[in-house]
Amino acid sequence: MAGNTFGKLFTVTTFGESHGIAIGGVVDGCPPGMALCEADLQVDLDRRKPGTSRYTTARREDDVVEILSGVFEGQTTGTSIGLLIRNKDQRSQDYSKIKDRFRPGHADYTYQQKYGLRDYRGGGRSSARETAIRVAAGGIAKKYLKTRHGIEIHGYLSQLGPIALACEDLSVVNDNPFFCAEPGKLDALDAYMRDLKKSGDSIGAKVSVVVKNVPVGLGEPIFDRLDADLAHAMMGINAVKGVEIGDGFAVVEQKGSQHRDELTPQGFASNHAGGVLGGISSGQDILIHMALKPTSSITVPGNTIDTAGQPTEVITKGRHDPCVGIRAVPIAEAMAALVLMDHLLRHRGQNADVKSTTPVIAP
Amino acid sequence: MAGNTFGKLFTVTTFGESHGIAIGGVVDGCPPGMALCEADLQVDLDRRKPGTSRYTTARREDDVVEILSGVFEGQTTGTSIGLLIRNKDQRSQDYSKIKDRFRPGHADYTYQQKYGLRDYRGGGRSSARETAIRVAAGGIAKKYLKTRHGIEIHGYLSQLGPIALACEDLSVVNDNPFFCAEPGKLDALDAYMRDLKKSGDSIGAKVSVVVKNVPVGLGEPIFDRLDADLAHAMMGINAVKGVEIGDGFAVVEQKGSQHRDELTPQGFASNHAGGVLGGISSGQDILIHMALKPTSSITVPGNTIDTAGQPTEVITKGRHDPCVGIRAVPIAEAMAALVLMDHLLRHRGQNADVKSTTPVIAP
Amino acid sequence: MAGNTFGKLFTVTTFGESHGIAIGGVVDGCPPGMALCEADLQVDLDRRKPGTSRYTTARREDDVVEILSGVFEGQTTGTSIGLLIRNKDQRSQDYSKIKDRFRPGHADYTYQQKYGLRDYRGGGRSSARETAIRVAAGGIAKKYLKTRHGIEIHGYLSQLGPIALACEDLSVVNDNPFFCAEPGKLDALDAYMRDLKKSGDSIGAKVSVVVKNVPVGLGEPIFDRLDADLAHAMMGINAVKGVEIGDGFAVVEQKGSQHRDELTPQGFASNHAGGVLGGISSGQDILIHMALKPTSSITVPGNTIDTAGQPTEVITKGRHDPCVGIRAVPIAEAMAALVLMDHLLRHRGQNADVKSTTPVIAP
Amino acid sequence: MAGNTFGKLFTVTTFGESHGIAIGGVVDGCPPGMALCEADLQVDLDRRKPGTSRYTTARREDDVVEILSGVFEGQTTGTSIGLLIRNKDQRSQDYSKIKDRFRPGHADYTYQQKYGLRDYRGGGRSSARETAIRVAAGGIAKKYLKTRHGIEIHGYLSQLGPIALACEDLSVVNDNPFFCAEPGKLDALDAYMRDLKKSGDSIGAKVSVVVKNVPVGLGEPIFDRLDADLAHAMMGINAVKGVEIGDGFAVVEQKGSQHRDELTPQGFASNHAGGVLGGISSGQDILIHMALKPTSSITVPGNTIDTAGQPTEVITKGRHDPCVGIRAVPIAEAMAALVLMDHLLRHRGQNADVKSTTPVIAP
Repeated sequence: MAGNTFGKLFTVTTFGESHGIAIGGVVDGCPPGMALCEADLQVDLDRRKPGTSRYTTARREDDVVEILSGVFEGQTTGTSIGLLIRNKDQRSQDYSKIKDRFRPGHADYTYQQKYGLRDYRGGGRSSARETAIRVAAGGIAKKYLKTRHGIEIHGYLSQLGPIALACEDLSVVNDNPFFCAEPGKLDALDAYMRDLKKSGDSIGAKVSVVVKNVPVGLGEPIFDRLDADLAHAMMGINAVKGVEIGDGFAVVEQKGSQHRDELTPQGFASNHAGGVLGGISSGQDILIHMALKPTSSITVPGNTIDTAGQPTEVITKGRHDPCVGIRAVPIAEAMAALVLMDHLLRHRGQNADVKSTTPVIAP
Repeated sequence: MAGNTFGKLFTVTTFGESHGIAIGGVVDGCPPGMALCEADLQVDLDRRKPGTSRYTTARREDDVVEILSGVFEGQTTGTSIGLLIRNKDQRSQDYSKIKDRFRPGHADYTYQQKYGLRDYRGGGRSSARETAIRVAAGGIAKKYLKTRHGIEIHGYLSQLGPIALACEDLSVVNDNPFFCAEPGKLDALDAYMRDLKKSGDSIGAKVSVVVKNVPVGLGEPIFDRLDADLAHAMMGINAVKGVEIGDGFAVVEQKGSQHRDELTPQGFASNHAGGVLGGISSGQDILIHMALKPTSSITVPGNTIDTAGQPTEVITKGRHDPCVGIRAVPIAEAMAALVLMDHLLRHRGQNADVKSTTPVIAP
Repeated sequence: MAGNTFGKLFTVTTFGESHGIAIGGVVDGCPPGMALCEADLQVDLDRRKPGTSRYTTARREDDVVEILSGVFEGQTTGTSIGLLIRNKDQRSQDYSKIKDRFRPGHADYTYQQKYGLRDYRGGGRSSARETAIRVAAGGIAKKYLKTRHGIEIHGYLSQLGPIALACEDLSVVNDNPFFCAEPGKLDALDAYMRDLKKSGDSIGAKVSVVVKNVPVGLGEPIFDRLDADLAHAMMGINAVKGVEIGDGFAVVEQKGSQHRDELTPQGFASNHAGGVLGGISSGQDILIHMALKPTSSITVPGNTIDTAGQPTEVITKGRHDPCVGIRAVPIAEAMAALVLMDHLLRHRGQNADVKSTTPVIAP
Repeated sequence: MAGNTFGKLFTVTTFGESHGIAIGGVVDGCPPGMALCEADLQVDLDRRKPGTSRYTTARREDDVVEILSGVFEGQTTGTSIGLLIRNKDQRSQDYSKIKDRFRPGHADYTYQQKYGLRDYRGGGRSSARETAIRVAAGGIAKKYLKTRHGIEIHGYLSQLGPIALACEDLSVVNDNPFFCAEPGKLDALDAYMRDLKKSGDSIGAKVSVVVKNVPVGLGEPIFDRLDADLAHAMMGINAVKGVEIGDGFAVVEQKGSQHRDELTPQGFASNHAGGVLGGISSGQDILIHMALKPTSSITVPGNTIDTAGQPTEVITKGRHDPCVGIRAVPIAEAMAALVLMDHLLRHRGQNADVKSTTPVIAP
């Protein structure tokens, strides 16, 4: 299957390039009878959209999404939902200089080799611009999960370069331009970013997602485990180079007696597993972490080759985020929502008539 | 889709429980005309199989695989390949004590809640026993990748608990029971494991995979990126809690000028990306790392609840590896092979007639 | 998987309702490097579009398709292609009368029961209006099949009510409003339709498709046989109630000695099979026939029930084709193109390196 | 995707050749908690198996199926179910004569061209032998549909060559070797078959399936309509050349006023549609008909070519059914069961929380 569809029962199929006419997609499998309007999706689109602070690209896009189908008299009908965002601030002229050379750290070289040609304007399809549609589609899933099952998905920036950020207060995440949950570090972040911009360089980041109120039972072993599908979703976000569930890489040095989460009638005694056991949600919070590489588009000159294979140099002027990790927060939330929604539908397809006789323990 | 099929064009569908009659599977999409016999698959099965050293479970299984179809006069025919391994040393009586209680760190509780019942003998379907079939299926992919494209897949143990292990010499990996590529650390590993066994506890590990001679162009953006599908594959291995491509979580503290791999006519100047750019293989070595949690089955007593929700205690006697990470090495190789094989077929399906005019740079 | 995606490697995902804002879709998996513009797709859209003759609905739609992505500097890029057609002549007021009652022969009752609500304007998603996007998507496949492989797809009306129509001259099919390949019957068709319109009733039809220059080898047994996938595609066209490959239902009374197509060095001696053997194309012409029921929207009053279950009557005024079979000709061609394109990519994915030593016989 | 998997949520993946070691498969997605044992599946396997009457092939196969996984203490566990049937009466020597020549009407030529080689023993994978696994898998679906939803699936022979057979009494279908529901025609069938065998020729047939007590709402428009998926399933049965739903090809000559099924508070007034409207089940009986070509393996000599392209002659001695249509009855039932089961799971995945306010009318 070509790679522009995500999910099995609740699917999103997307299209669109950074500097094309529009980006858009189709959400299929949404249960009928849910109230839905554009404003529901705009909230997260506005959180993701460029040009909102001095820490992000200066490109101006309203990112106003249009729902073209699948909603009638304010309610989803169960049919496929068409989504469309017209591009506005395309300034393609910025990119003429990279037409014949490959930017290091970008997908220019691999797209050229795979397809024999590439849309060089702003990265074309490889640009993170397409993630706006993921955010819109994820918004539909988020609403269903929240209104029907009380499931809440919270993303936050957990590290920016050398500055680690605790998950202190999720309620302040949307009140600052860093999606930071540790308010005491905001000044440090601001100072760091100011210096970074001056240097013309960029920095990596770590983003985390917590999912609360997940019902026990989501995930389809052996291969479509909930954690495996979350890893697929997160590693598929532009710039992500690592994904962890629960304690992640810290488990390498853990003992079994230390890692395993004991069960008590009052609930699990700990959550090293991050809410997934055997690929199936345990009812505990799902804990996901991911590492995002620093933006490759920087004004520091870099060596590369041109399309004829000759050595040359490149400076990416364009308009870019010095830390792509920041704006990845709503994208990561959206991808988590898409995975959970898909697994919810898959689970109840197969197991609708299951009646477990074991009490569900508190998370 | 139910979760027991892996891949889109080159697929493997598996069945079987730890203590059932047999485990098996179907490999579909294998190109015709490749020489194939059971001995080809037995090599890796023997590397994975239990009971081969004092560091692994004492369960004795020959793990002899039978090819039931899809091969005629020694060659693959292009039709589906049936694989079967009969279970032998099942000793189900070991497990009667855990029938009514949930082992911490295991999938007992989540399977019970999802399906309303569970095969409690040795974890049933959630046992790593089923990975033998992944290894057999991966062996078919490995052979095709190697013989037709020269692609080589090397796994090794890169950390055991506190002992980090360098990738010093891949040629010695199969000469020691740890799949260790740093021969100077073998004594330290041996000593660590001896002490661990005495304590009745278990330990986590890190496993790495290097894929060499990958053609440029594999991977299907946006969602089925090569790195995303590798993350899905690796996070789907039992006990894996984290996956990295290239520099992984180290990118969080990297600058853009430091991370991006420059291109020269002689090849890439570095490989921070781990061989994947924009979700597509760059022709460089693919570098994958994963974290495996410590075995949950230990003789250290643990608190839990029974199926009635009452508190109780559990000691897992059975026969278990004190470090599941070790035997995961051939499994990780097999999963990498399955992903690459699937993407090779998908890529040439869509792009068979592409003729790139840009020279492919040396890795 | 929700049902709005067609194909495995070359896929089309559609959205849109009869009287919504727009209909559209995403074509994924198109090989890169093919010249493509809107005019390529408009040809078949114009053949399908309503309001072109007195034998079709009076609804006026320009059906101008917009290509939103996946094409750069006039060539496909290998990325997903967004397609959009805005609806114009929606006149929803026509449908207020059927809001609370189920039209016999329509999907009103089944949509209401399945989804709990329905977009009652013109049938919503169940309207044949969405087939415009299939035609646009099929146009992309058609162009690739024709320009790269010389494959030609010809549809024609093979029966209208009692009037059987021979495949006499495919070159005249687009010169008459009936897609008729037997010019001598045009007057009879005209007379029949005139009388039919007067009566306020509708009539069934038979549509046939011939595919020429198909390479031998397309089709994926056991389940995704070429004929099985063609049957799926054709039975999925609105109003189709029967599908035949080759001799179809006539085989029931045939003897084996009569049906089997003998092979000679000059080619097959006959084509009872219709170009498919064992689910794989033989290189002969592929012959497909399908039966389309008469339009259910007629001005003859019919008994039905309302949404409260009470008996009532319905007359469908709207604007409808008295024979939906006629305009199904380009739709059937498009669906055949989608199936062949998908199988072409799937076949070369698995079998790219096959070199048959047997000579291919002439069709 | 390679073609040996059927279904989306409830899937069956099969393997095995006519004269290989074994045939088998994996059923995935079966809901847990259903009582299941081999005897449940043997009933239909015995109805399909060869050598049971003088009208079928003399090949002797017990066709005893082994359930290898997915069932624990007599109940399905929700995990994948492995199925295995060992071949016994393989007599491969029968087939040495056709090693180098293509039997007309068979898949010999197309397999050879597609894959570059073929298992020539009895047709290899193209043999109807593999349908035994479909029947076993269908048996699992049948049991669930029957025990949980009261859905009944009845197949019968509706025509054999020139002898049309009415659906007079479904209760006698399993009491005669023809699966005939019109007892008065049994002597005529017997006489016809006796003469046919003498002539060394074979004959086509028509098989029909009635599905009773189907809930309203199954089917996933636009592309995965219930009727489209049934057409896919039936056309995928060996030798099937045509499929009809409801009135099928008779609709070509019907008027709209005659075809549309009126609704009354007491139920639908007729069932021309065959139980499907807009691709969704209406709650009426689902009516399916299919045409099966005469067996191509006959003792009447036929012209063909050899693998070098030279003209030659072939007589298929082997052991073959003079009318493959007869034994297709349980296969068609099985395929109908697989489609319905898949759609049941898919429907409740998406629409589990739908509460229709419209009364369901009686079938």
